[in-house]
Amino acid sequence: MAVPARFRQALAEHRSGYALPRAFALDPDIHEHELAAIWRQSWLFAGVSVQARKPGDFFRFDLDAGDSVVLVRDRDGQLRGLHNTCRHRGMPVCPQASGRVRRWVCPYHQWSYALDGRLLGSGGEEVDPREFGLRRAPVAEIGGLVFVWLGDAPAPLDEAARGLGAALAAQGLDRARVAHTIDYGVRANWKLVWENNRECWHCHAGHPEYIRANFDAAPDTPHHRRRAAARAAEHAVALAELEAPAAAHDEPGLFRFPSPGRWWSANRTPLSDGFVTESVDGRPVAPVMGDYRSHDVGTLRLRTVPNFWCHASADHAVLTRLLPAGPELTRIRVMWLVDGSAEPGRDYDVDRLLPFWRLTSEQDWDLCERNHVGVRNPAFEPGPYSPRREYNVMAFVEWYLARIGGA
Amino acid sequence: MAVPARFRQALAEHRSGYALPRAFALDPDIHEHELAAIWRQSWLFAGVSVQARKPGDFFRFDLDAGDSVVLVRDRDGQLRGLHNTCRHRGMPVCPQASGRVRRWVCPYHQWSYALDGRLLGSGGEEVDPREFGLRRAPVAEIGGLVFVWLGDAPAPLDEAARGLGAALAAQGLDRARVAHTIDYGVRANWKLVWENNRECWHCHAGHPEYIRANFDAAPDTPHHRRRAAARAAEHAVALAELEAPAAAHDEPGLFRFPSPGRWWSANRTPLSDGFVTESVDGRPVAPVMGDYRSHDVGTLRLRTVPNFWCHASADHAVLTRLLPAGPELTRIRVMWLVDGSAEPGRDYDVDRLLPFWRLTSEQDWDLCERNHVGVRNPAFEPGPYSPRREYNVMAFVEWYLARIGGA
Amino acid sequence: MAVPARFRQALAEHRSGYALPRAFALDPDIHEHELAAIWRQSWLFAGVSVQARKPGDFFRFDLDAGDSVVLVRDRDGQLRGLHNTCRHRGMPVCPQASGRVRRWVCPYHQWSYALDGRLLGSGGEEVDPREFGLRRAPVAEIGGLVFVWLGDAPAPLDEAARGLGAALAAQGLDRARVAHTIDYGVRANWKLVWENNRECWHCHAGHPEYIRANFDAAPDTPHHRRRAAARAAEHAVALAELEAPAAAHDEPGLFRFPSPGRWWSANRTPLSDGFVTESVDGRPVAPVMGDYRSHDVGTLRLRTVPNFWCHASADHAVLTRLLPAGPELTRIRVMWLVDGSAEPGRDYDVDRLLPFWRLTSEQDWDLCERNHVGVRNPAFEPGPYSPRREYNVMAFVEWYLARIGGA
Repeated sequence: MAVPARFRQALAEHRSGYALPRAFALDPDIHEHELAAIWRQSWLFAGVSVQARKPGDFFRFDLDAGDSVVLVRDRDGQLRGLHNTCRHRGMPVCPQASGRVRRWVCPYHQWSYALDGRLLGSGGEEVDPREFGLRRAPVAEIGGLVFVWLGDAPAPLDEAARGLGAALAAQGLDRARVAHTIDYGVRANWKLVWENNRECWHCHAGHPEYIRANFDAAPDTPHHRRRAAARAAEHAVALAELEAPAAAHDEPGLFRFPSPGRWWSANRTPLSDGFVTESVDGRPVAPVMGDYRSHDVGTLRLRTVPNFWCHASADHAVLTRLLPAGPELTRIRVMWLVDGSAEPGRDYDVDRLLPFWRLTSEQDWDLCERNHVGVRNPAFEPGPYSPRREYNVMAFVEWYLARIGGA
Repeated sequence: MAVPARFRQALAEHRSGYALPRAFALDPDIHEHELAAIWRQSWLFAGVSVQARKPGDFFRFDLDAGDSVVLVRDRDGQLRGLHNTCRHRGMPVCPQASGRVRRWVCPYHQWSYALDGRLLGSGGEEVDPREFGLRRAPVAEIGGLVFVWLGDAPAPLDEAARGLGAALAAQGLDRARVAHTIDYGVRANWKLVWENNRECWHCHAGHPEYIRANFDAAPDTPHHRRRAAARAAEHAVALAELEAPAAAHDEPGLFRFPSPGRWWSANRTPLSDGFVTESVDGRPVAPVMGDYRSHDVGTLRLRTVPNFWCHASADHAVLTRLLPAGPELTRIRVMWLVDGSAEPGRDYDVDRLLPFWRLTSEQDWDLCERNHVGVRNPAFEPGPYSPRREYNVMAFVEWYLARIGGA
Repeated sequence: MAVPARFRQALAEHRSGYALPRAFALDPDIHEHELAAIWRQSWLFAGVSVQARKPGDFFRFDLDAGDSVVLVRDRDGQLRGLHNTCRHRGMPVCPQASGRVRRWVCPYHQWSYALDGRLLGSGGEEVDPREFGLRRAPVAEIGGLVFVWLGDAPAPLDEAARGLGAALAAQGLDRARVAHTIDYGVRANWKLVWENNRECWHCHAGHPEYIRANFDAAPDTPHHRRRAAARAAEHAVALAELEAPAAAHDEPGLFRFPSPGRWWSANRTPLSDGFVTESVDGRPVAPVMGDYRSHDVGTLRLRTVPNFWCHASADHAVLTRLLPAGPELTRIRVMWLVDGSAEPGRDYDVDRLLPFWRLTSEQDWDLCERNHVGVRNPAFEPGPYSPRREYNVMAFVEWYLARIGGA
């Protein structure tokens, strides 16, 4: 994979412990390189298993760069990933964003394919069906999350499947209900969105709702450390009683993530006193999900680079998916999930379910867009990260440079 | 003419008998190269003679890339092509899309030019009028069609003038009336529009109206071949009686076109039983045109690469003009012409005249746009053309590669 | 500074005394080069001193390319220029276009800075305040005009300060009132806007209002020369009585400007008989400004390349600021200033103040946009400038080529 000249120039300007030079947020050649080296060589979060429950159910996963994969439930219950381009003249065999089909029929010349992509018909032309099936995209379901790999040679994900699967086991995402989805177009480079996500220094001024519910976002003082440790200890006892998974984490502050060898992580943390869920007032917003028996399970946090994080309380989970749409635009989808048996109106109310993460997310998108504006300034000079507060931003930059070919 | 590196890379990926690699539909450098090597080195269909009937009448022909030519009827009855840029500071001497003038006066500093482009005045400056006339663009009128050549060194067109002229002689386009014009912006590469035009495999599913009127679009079975031959034989007799031109064609299926040595073609084919014109119900939509004495002359089809085709029935002609507007957008104008003596309301009704080709055209534009979406997918792999059904798509690709420098 | 290949190619096509080849108006690489070599290496007109009168008052100066400088009045009365990007993660410390502050606080992580850019706080992080103050942009106030330098190593401007300062002394811009501002997006290369500004050949047909007020725009005949000289002689006497500055200019026609060694100029010229100000009817539109004691001071004209000109009458001044927004778009702000004591409604009426220069400006923007359309035509060939009428257009091209590295 050719490394563009501008990438090498920009890399030469980079100083360890400092923000990335501005070309990384602006340059179209570097962006192309990222698509090839990262986005098409990573497990990408696409959606949730319940978006395709029954045989023939499908949903599409698209990038602005043109990539399009159909995720379809096969008759054997397996989820398949199929590149959405006919092997004849290339027309998408699936023009719909989601739905149910029996087989794929290209709307142009009616070449037809089975749910798993095998070529069924080509209008009588002599075409070898073994050679001209729809191209498969590797796909994985982990605890109700759907990951897809756009390029060739997918990385093994046994360890991630075990780790994320264990963390998610009790949450019941694989039988949840998608209560709401919001799509955003954020005018910021996707890495600036991650930088924002990987530190909570900005939380105190930027997220008034979030910091009330999450004590670990509080200032890092001895007093707060003592309080957090005590809260975590109580919480560990409660979790043990609930047989909830062991992915608990007793340090205040953010879990260290990512690293060149670690593309996923999960940890569970107690919430602030008086908060049983991440809601504005701390009170429940839906019935407990999955196998939980109580609201008091703290908050389960997951992330996978390059494009996913999740904050799950006992009664709902909020999933965030990033997709790049050029160097200066990131498409972000936020999904709210509740227990599969919960009924809107009766068991939950979106007006109470949404505000906490809608507000927090939109506060972040605004900060990211303003950060991007400042990075566009030719007078921008990358500044020093705080080892105490921005260690995970540094970790993200280290992961990025390793993946992109700079480390 | 420099061939861009991306063109050579894309060409190296091309496999004979297969669709073009996706860079040909997307890459701006390849598109620039096409403008220079094809669009500015071909006879382009610009419009019809009747758009400029009398001395001083003019209409403009523009490309999104900036090219602009005025086509103006001179006092001697000749049509002139003038590059629409003042020889002083470059302002267009003709800001209107069409109209009538006595001479050209640049709105900036009032340099003035005769209808044939000769410099008449330059505000008293010492400027050699022989050197600073408006640059001429070669232009040709053939059977009422206007062709223009944007670059230098126009190719001779005697043979095309004879062939197209003979085919069009009876149609009377040179004294027709433009009954209606629709302009489209089709989000597809111009070559995908030609690929769509060069096969009728998609007609059965894609064009319900078209296939009823055109028996040669029917499935290629022995039964259909026999029926078509019988219909063509009857038709030949009818044409002979009418003294209609000899460009008849007795094979079902599409006339073979284009080839590296052949940029134009014309053929006449009978319509299906019960259809005397290409209308939705097969009944006439206007009086017979030109020198025809009966509706039963079948359909006259013409095409010139890179930008024109025409379907003419006895009572109306439908002209389609393509213009590139970047690699991912094609501007398409469709014009409906009727006999010059026909009066709207009295002799024809646009609500009956338009639907057949409006529906058929828009069905094609939709297919082309969806085809382009699929070709944008990085997972797109060019598939094999059918030698039986897509020989003319292969012919188009062969012509294209010869013109662009790849064959 | 690397000179792009396309610049060298385009330069090789340039013929002395002729317009610039079209690449200079279209090519993004050449445009980038101009930003680096001219726009970030020149004194740019940003606004007027009265936009930031008191300590803490500020206004922003931005380019579409991302440059953003805050111009703020410090406690000592000095105007400071600060690059608007936090030294931590780059967010603009000033999101508002104008206003008043006590200090700068970055909205992201609350790093704070004094009005002069000194780092005051970084959340307790160990950051050297001497190293991490906001970057300073050199700024100068001359006779009420604010100039800023975006790059490093500002050119000395003592001579310009003396010359422009003397010319502006009586006008009182430093205590004026901004009566009105209009922002335009003109779809033309910024150099075509200057070419339009640097000749008045187009005035006779293009500016019916302007030529009535400005006798020097009249045809250059012996009769007009005599009349102009007589008018200038009377005017010189009047100016001497008024103790107005000595920058009078007694030649009809346009002052010769710019040249490689001269980026500013000022001259004063009488108006046509019957005009005491540049208004449509020649009658006053506001009270006399500054130190003037009469309306009869003619018109004071100033220009600074690359982005400013001003036409000042006794009772109002009209300031025009150009900013590039890509090769094919120029942002233009026109500001009308009156005496600081004048009250709208009582002393002046914008409906009488604006028309003269609003009409004249918009007439020019229209000509510039049409000129740009013609230069986009690949058939455009640069034509010869008139040595008699376009000597200043040639002077501008000469200045440009010297600045850009081509002379």
